[in-house]
Amino acid sequence: MNWLLIFIPVAFGLEHEHAAPTITFATSALAILPLAALMGKATEALAHYLGPHFGGMLCGSMGNAPELIIGIAALNHGLIDMLKSSIAGAIIGNLLFGLGLSMFAGGIKRGTQSFDGRVISIHSALLVLGTLSLIVPSVFHVAADTDRELSLHISVTLLIIYAAGILHILLNERAAVTDSHQSVIDDVALEQRRAADIEGVPGLSLDRVADLEEKPAWGRNTALAVLACVASTLAMLSDILTGSVQPAADAMHLNPVFAGVFLLALIGNIPEYLNAYTFARKDQMTLALSINLGATTQLVLLVAPVLVICGAAMELDMNLLFNNFELVAILLSVTVTRTLIANNRTTWFEGLLLMGLYTVLGFGFYYLPKS
Amino acid sequence: MNWLLIFIPVAFGLEHEHAAPTITFATSALAILPLAALMGKATEALAHYLGPHFGGMLCGSMGNAPELIIGIAALNHGLIDMLKSSIAGAIIGNLLFGLGLSMFAGGIKRGTQSFDGRVISIHSALLVLGTLSLIVPSVFHVAADTDRELSLHISVTLLIIYAAGILHILLNERAAVTDSHQSVIDDVALEQRRAADIEGVPGLSLDRVADLEEKPAWGRNTALAVLACVASTLAMLSDILTGSVQPAADAMHLNPVFAGVFLLALIGNIPEYLNAYTFARKDQMTLALSINLGATTQLVLLVAPVLVICGAAMELDMNLLFNNFELVAILLSVTVTRTLIANNRTTWFEGLLLMGLYTVLGFGFYYLPKS
Amino acid sequence: MNWLLIFIPVAFGLEHEHAAPTITFATSALAILPLAALMGKATEALAHYLGPHFGGMLCGSMGNAPELIIGIAALNHGLIDMLKSSIAGAIIGNLLFGLGLSMFAGGIKRGTQSFDGRVISIHSALLVLGTLSLIVPSVFHVAADTDRELSLHISVTLLIIYAAGILHILLNERAAVTDSHQSVIDDVALEQRRAADIEGVPGLSLDRVADLEEKPAWGRNTALAVLACVASTLAMLSDILTGSVQPAADAMHLNPVFAGVFLLALIGNIPEYLNAYTFARKDQMTLALSINLGATTQLVLLVAPVLVICGAAMELDMNLLFNNFELVAILLSVTVTRTLIANNRTTWFEGLLLMGLYTVLGFGFYYLPKS
Repeated sequence: MNWLLIFIPVAFGLEHEHAAPTITFATSALAILPLAALMGKATEALAHYLGPHFGGMLCGSMGNAPELIIGIAALNHGLIDMLKSSIAGAIIGNLLFGLGLSMFAGGIKRGTQSFDGRVISIHSALLVLGTLSLIVPSVFHVAADTDRELSLHISVTLLIIYAAGILHILLNERAAVTDSHQSVIDDVALEQRRAADIEGVPGLSLDRVADLEEKPAWGRNTALAVLACVASTLAMLSDILTGSVQPAADAMHLNPVFAGVFLLALIGNIPEYLNAYTFARKDQMTLALSINLGATTQLVLLVAPVLVICGAAMELDMNLLFNNFELVAILLSVTVTRTLIANNRTTWFEGLLLMGLYTVLGFGFYYLPKS
Repeated sequence: MNWLLIFIPVAFGLEHEHAAPTITFATSALAILPLAALMGKATEALAHYLGPHFGGMLCGSMGNAPELIIGIAALNHGLIDMLKSSIAGAIIGNLLFGLGLSMFAGGIKRGTQSFDGRVISIHSALLVLGTLSLIVPSVFHVAADTDRELSLHISVTLLIIYAAGILHILLNERAAVTDSHQSVIDDVALEQRRAADIEGVPGLSLDRVADLEEKPAWGRNTALAVLACVASTLAMLSDILTGSVQPAADAMHLNPVFAGVFLLALIGNIPEYLNAYTFARKDQMTLALSINLGATTQLVLLVAPVLVICGAAMELDMNLLFNNFELVAILLSVTVTRTLIANNRTTWFEGLLLMGLYTVLGFGFYYLPKS
Repeated sequence: MNWLLIFIPVAFGLEHEHAAPTITFATSALAILPLAALMGKATEALAHYLGPHFGGMLCGSMGNAPELIIGIAALNHGLIDMLKSSIAGAIIGNLLFGLGLSMFAGGIKRGTQSFDGRVISIHSALLVLGTLSLIVPSVFHVAADTDRELSLHISVTLLIIYAAGILHILLNERAAVTDSHQSVIDDVALEQRRAADIEGVPGLSLDRVADLEEKPAWGRNTALAVLACVASTLAMLSDILTGSVQPAADAMHLNPVFAGVFLLALIGNIPEYLNAYTFARKDQMTLALSINLGATTQLVLLVAPVLVICGAAMELDMNLLFNNFELVAILLSVTVTRTLIANNRTTWFEGLLLMGLYTVLGFGFYYLPKS
């Protein structure tokens, strides 16, 4: 994917030349993809030197850094409604498109695939709780003057729940380590339990932890330097991206909700979809599902609340109010995903069903009025 | 049930004499029942000569032919709202009344009954996906001029999903046949897998497939002749039925939504309810459930989309917009049914619960205003 | 808890002196707690003399007597909206706060706890059916003149379902007793089945049945006298409580919906929460969950319908219409609870999640406008 880095100077050049917004948008979106992947790699290298506990936490919390950076850039441009649409769109896209693609591609190659239901049921529960909390402000929206306060209070509650989730996993991991001193005979069982426990952290996916035990590609100082470099480039590109999304949508005759839900939402998440896709083709569905559901949970419990708090700090009118279409689409996505994974097996046909619902929702959003 | 055929000439006579609409409606409804049963029998005989693959597909696709014929007759009379009510009512009636009656009657005779959860979970998942897709146009209804386009696009998507489901089962069935050449020692396991695979086709119920292996009642030409005869009689009766339903509802002081959801919806489905009832009394709950859920899934993925496309071809204002009451009733029915069958066991009390909710919804629809 | 009885004379004194409503409300609430506990104890003693069948039924039906008495007092004061808010609040509070606290406290002490999923799935199914029936009148609310009729009809249907549930358990219990004469070798299995059957009665919790087999604290006549005494005191205190709740809410600048959902709702249920809490700490999660879910089911299938019928008898405009916020909060509570208990295990973190959603909803209700 590194060859896509060529788009970085192109994006800056187009921006400087005031090129057509559609071109600028597409170029900056393409340039962001390899940066998001590099950021993940640098974080993992850094995590190696921090040890499993704090390293795991870092990986978990940095996984959605590209979304956060893009989100803050959108706040800077005052694109509040489009930012909220992109949060909704990321939930829908992760669950229907990302998961559907993994299940479809894995199923085509491997037939019916199974996964560890105990691991996934934790993600699934957190996801339901998080998304349902997220829609509370929209439901209780009665007087515009309390929307911001309500959203702020709920954001803080969600962050506390996220922190408790991190604590939950640190305690469990420590218990698992202590257990391992006592006996080594039930190694397999222990391994499974550790795996399950680690999975329990929203957004902390097994693959990253596995990577922690390998020799990282970079030394500590190199990793820090790469991270700083990538983050600042990402911030500048996000500025170009979010500055061009509205004119690009207008040029393509798309309504802004569609642009937020189906264009802006996908950009930060494509590396994760590719990751999950790769694991699905390798028949590692537990991993593929937990990357996807973990990222979605974290989006809800960490990214969205942090953006609300940032918005309040920037004295913007940022809140957690979604429009009815976004609300229903979020609820449908969560319901259908939970239903299809309830039997601990996936098939290409179930993947197709998820992508089918994504298409159906796409038609719905596409035909929304422009104004 | 064949003695009900006597009502066919009676219905034509009443129609000719311009009898009271309530009587005409009731008579034509009674006359349709044995025809729907005969149609199923002729389709099965024909399927025998087509071989298991295409025969199974034929059975699956013809199972809802009576609903389709009645639906087209309703379109002909311009009864678009009542047709949509009857689609909603068929979903609600299948899940709450049909399934509830099976579970109640089976449970009274046999105590707690169990079924094969793997088979039913596929139906259950398809049902959730289908019904949720069906309600998308209602949710995205904002500007009346795009309702028809949106409904058309979603209908085509649902038909593609239905076709993929058929493909899914054909591939699995072929795989099962290939496997059987390799070994015959795990015959039972294979049989179970085949059963599960066959069940996977929406609307293709085991009983019909089992019948394929018996000698059919009719030869191929007889079956074709019976099918042609029955279908044309059914079309004429449906015309009488749908022509009298609105005046009959007025005469009985019923609002049109109630008439659609609770009268028109039940007529095409009573043979299926009797079928499922019979299997439930024989303690074959997997079969009873899969007939019922399969018919409901097919209604959503095949009948409703085809009616939307027919409506568009007839240049009518047909779409998939349901009113709020129908939407909520559909969602409640699907939710409660899924909840009650989640533990893979059924009791008479659970059947009573489903019929109880049907009663509760019946009161709700009954008290809707007339206009 | 008996030392709280001291608040009974204090509450009567404050009422007589026209003290500040906040103080009167708090004092009468505190005085009701030990009375509710005493009532449970007297009912259990009385049940001992009635034998297991009718004793169990008595316990089951009297478990929510305090809520009923408070509810009738609220009807007497014409506090219909607040009464409905408190019904909604009791459902939300039971599921999110009561259950969350049990799971949290049990999990902190005992780690991951498991429970018998077969027992709980029955409660869970009844709960879903009951709550969904309860919201039907709100959905079908179109013309104010039929709300009362619709609510009455649905209330009667819910009571019939409740009665069928009682019949269901009596039949199963009799079958279990007959079985025990035939063989004693599978004693453990039988015991488990009996336990499961007994649990099947909505609101009839195992602990009470277990108590039936011990020598009760009081003789029959003493128990009857205590019951009469407690019930009449409770009725008088409920009058003071409901008379002071509106002025107290005003004095604390709380909107009436918040007061109903979060203050009035909790008072009658605190003894049950303490009960469930105690069992959770003893690692008896099946019992803790079934007390909680049983009480909630009974609230929906018995208490709410009886209050609607009482309201109609008192010629009040009592119905089952909830506002949108209450509806959504009920649906969210039921959905999240079902999701978290689906894997038959509970942890402190899941308890925290439930209490987190309770907090999120609390913020929502708190910010509702006063009028």
